[in-house]
Amino acid sequence: MSIADDNDNIFKALASRTRRQLLDFLKDRPQTTGMLCAAFPDLDRCTVMQHLKVLEEADLIIARREGRERWNHLNALPIKHIHDRWIGPYAAHAIGILDRLQADLG
Amino acid sequence: MSIADDNDNIFKALASRTRRQLLDFLKDRPQTTGMLCAAFPDLDRCTVMQHLKVLEEADLIIARREGRERWNHLNALPIKHIHDRWIGPYAAHAIGILDRLQADLG
Repeated sequence: MSIADDNDNIFKALASRTRRQLLDFLKDRPQTTGMLCAAFPDLDRCTVMQHLKVLEEADLIIARREGRERWNHLNALPIKHIHDRWIGPYAAHAIGILDRLQADLG
Repeated sequence: MSIADDNDNIFKALASRTRRQLLDFLKDRPQTTGMLCAAFPDLDRCTVMQHLKVLEEADLIIARREGRERWNHLNALPIKHIHDRWIGPYAAHAIGILDRLQADLG
């Protein structure tokens, strides 16, 4: 069992569509928990907080408290490490070309 | 629901530690199913083939038949797309610096 497999909690966290959507929402800027609840009206506050807890334990978000507000920041480092695990520096270049080619043809 | 969430099968495929280890094994070169079975002696052939099927359906491996052998190739494009979903071109640069800094300090 390799050390990299300590990342189980990261992949488990990403396996939920709702949690991926929460991360999408945090991509451009940090959001308070209240803002996230407002953006996901189908989820009650407790469910949003449970998802945020799973994401925080996986180190995919970093929370900072400011007064009564909790600001949730996307932490992209674990996502970079997923990329680097299977795509080395040389392959990254080749895959970038392939991806653009597919986009141009698609 | 965004189009990107059609990727459910990719994240489900990556949520299994064994499937991630199979992808690790394919990183450097394609392998036949027989080679993979030999590399994972704790798994029976049927289990290996089930995992390969999940990975193939998620487009994380591409299989090519040559005579009686099936060669399994890692397809890194979906992994690049995970990266690109949450890490834009500008952020990629900043995160690269942060990652090296953490590695140097660690």
